[in-house]
Amino acid sequence: MQEYAEMYRKELVDNVLPFWLQNSRDDRNGGFFTCLDRTGKVFDTDKFMWLQGREVWCFSYMYHNVSAEKSWLDMALHGAAFMEKFGRDQSGNWYFSLTAEGKPLVQPYNIFSDCFAAMAFAALDKVQPSDKYKEIAVSTFNNILERQHDWKGVYNKAYPGTRPLKGFSLPMILCNLSLEMEHLLGSEKVNELAPVVIHEVMNVFYQPEHGLILENVNPDGSFSNSFEGRLMNPGHTIEAMWFIMDLGRRLQDEALVKKACDIMLRTLEYGWDKEYGGIFYFLDLLGHPTQQLEWDQKLWWVHVETLVALAKGYTYTGDERCLQWFHKVHAYTWTHFKDQQYGEWFGYLNRRGEVLLNLKGGKWKGCFHVPRALYQVWNTLKADNI
Amino acid sequence: MQEYAEMYRKELVDNVLPFWLQNSRDDRNGGFFTCLDRTGKVFDTDKFMWLQGREVWCFSYMYHNVSAEKSWLDMALHGAAFMEKFGRDQSGNWYFSLTAEGKPLVQPYNIFSDCFAAMAFAALDKVQPSDKYKEIAVSTFNNILERQHDWKGVYNKAYPGTRPLKGFSLPMILCNLSLEMEHLLGSEKVNELAPVVIHEVMNVFYQPEHGLILENVNPDGSFSNSFEGRLMNPGHTIEAMWFIMDLGRRLQDEALVKKACDIMLRTLEYGWDKEYGGIFYFLDLLGHPTQQLEWDQKLWWVHVETLVALAKGYTYTGDERCLQWFHKVHAYTWTHFKDQQYGEWFGYLNRRGEVLLNLKGGKWKGCFHVPRALYQVWNTLKADNI
Repeated sequence: MQEYAEMYRKELVDNVLPFWLQNSRDDRNGGFFTCLDRTGKVFDTDKFMWLQGREVWCFSYMYHNVSAEKSWLDMALHGAAFMEKFGRDQSGNWYFSLTAEGKPLVQPYNIFSDCFAAMAFAALDKVQPSDKYKEIAVSTFNNILERQHDWKGVYNKAYPGTRPLKGFSLPMILCNLSLEMEHLLGSEKVNELAPVVIHEVMNVFYQPEHGLILENVNPDGSFSNSFEGRLMNPGHTIEAMWFIMDLGRRLQDEALVKKACDIMLRTLEYGWDKEYGGIFYFLDLLGHPTQQLEWDQKLWWVHVETLVALAKGYTYTGDERCLQWFHKVHAYTWTHFKDQQYGEWFGYLNRRGEVLLNLKGGKWKGCFHVPRALYQVWNTLKADNI
Repeated sequence: MQEYAEMYRKELVDNVLPFWLQNSRDDRNGGFFTCLDRTGKVFDTDKFMWLQGREVWCFSYMYHNVSAEKSWLDMALHGAAFMEKFGRDQSGNWYFSLTAEGKPLVQPYNIFSDCFAAMAFAALDKVQPSDKYKEIAVSTFNNILERQHDWKGVYNKAYPGTRPLKGFSLPMILCNLSLEMEHLLGSEKVNELAPVVIHEVMNVFYQPEHGLILENVNPDGSFSNSFEGRLMNPGHTIEAMWFIMDLGRRLQDEALVKKACDIMLRTLEYGWDKEYGGIFYFLDLLGHPTQQLEWDQKLWWVHVETLVALAKGYTYTGDERCLQWFHKVHAYTWTHFKDQQYGEWFGYLNRRGEVLLNLKGGKWKGCFHVPRALYQVWNTLKADNI
């Protein structure tokens, strides 16, 4: 395990963080470019607020947890200044995207921009305490809670009442976000929120008869036999399970940690491609064709989040199955996603594991899952934890 | 050519139309099921208005142009009754989807539901003239013209003014729709509309320096260096070019027919996958990674519409390149898309031409492109035309 730990640490500090430091900073307009080709060259200049927030979070977090490198803090401050200046509409909702110069391009239709903005300013406030950062983080968080049951607002295309499904993404992210913001929200608030989101994830979205979690369920948690209702996203479940394991540790609830570890392993078994290796992006619970044409692709975040979940599962519960799976997923991931020639990792592979999009960052891939996972695996496996 | 013509006719009347007749009719609720697995079994019961309209159009059209089979007219009337009863909101906009029973599921965010509804009732009115069908077709058509410049309405996520791109889809469909509705709109209206849509397609969206058509351009037709602006959809352009060739024939404009044929051939050359064969779904004009993860997949409609365009190009202009390409695309399409074991054709293949989704119909594939293309190729190539 110590060899793994060192390998993940080295990849984080020698390859991945330097790639973003060197290639993503927009010195002219502020903020970050995230559409970077294989070599790190910018191929599109639009700025997606999700990814601006995630990169601010990442450099703040690494400065706090890995090493107080001045260039990392500078990078976080650089991104935060751009976000603060251009990122929000008049009601404080975060736009989905801006032009390079900061003009709004796409409206705040997506509450996950707000989630990562809150996470960014909360993390930055930890390393550079400021009333302004605190205010942005907390007011954004409160806005998320207010909007959580109808966050699509006018952009919601569902006809009211016919099939009122609930989505898994927001409760899942709130698990992680409440822990990330505990220093601002206070332990009491986290103690109050935690049981609610844990109940949503582990009871409402979890389907006991299958032992699996669905992306969309009826309001009472029952199965909806529709495209949305049958949809499974194994990587999403697996990532949520490490959030839950962390929450379980925070609440000293060993049974919860064990339950999350079991669901994670069952999902991995279910989502693993027995023919070509790797984890499918989407599956249909009943085995029907999915709506998503990209269902059989292998995505970076799915695989690196699985490595985190397996490392945590093994360290927290000692379950040997986690160790066996870790070896297997590690081998697949490092062989297929890590670029042996240029910096950072590929994001999108086809079912056979061949590179599908020749990029290191884009509209959805930024400076987030790879560095966070490298840190989490390293930090979980290093000597003093086992 | 006569052998081809007979092959396409036989596939239409012996395989494809019977498949939909046997499997898609919902006798309990009315309307059509379109989510059909490889064997024709229903795997999802939602009703997508696009596909309801397209199937009504198809059976009306075949009744009118191929043979007055009572079962075909019955099928069209059966679908039209369901559409008429449940398909529209109070303003006459067509919903995107309904439950099996006809309850609205997804709001009328998509004007293409309206386009295919207008086309359906216009075609049905040709074979079963009725003031009611005429009224639905014409009022829907007028509503499309009224909404055409802001058809996304409240569902538009673009921030006003920053990057006001125009999309290719609607002008392209209006080329075809105005011809399909000529008996209701009158020749004068078509003569008035035609130059406008032809100008849009052949001047605004066409980029002379590349000789290609883009999916989205600035309002003045210039290139926008953005994900949307760089996007090419070769199948879309090729399909539009046979609409333009038909309009060119209708207007007796030989130069227009020839120009459309040239653009079609250039697009096919550009979009053809030199490694595995078949036509790519999406490409980026500058060769950057696309947003669309499904960019390298091979889709049924792209290939069958290309066969139509090549047959028309050859018949209308005599260009030998059309004939050479026809042999090649025909061989790829019939080998990879036609199911040798069960009825109808596969819809979605991966880059290598292997079946990606084991379905014959779904949310976007219904009773439309395959039968229309089989009819068009047969009708274009048959003896009396050449």
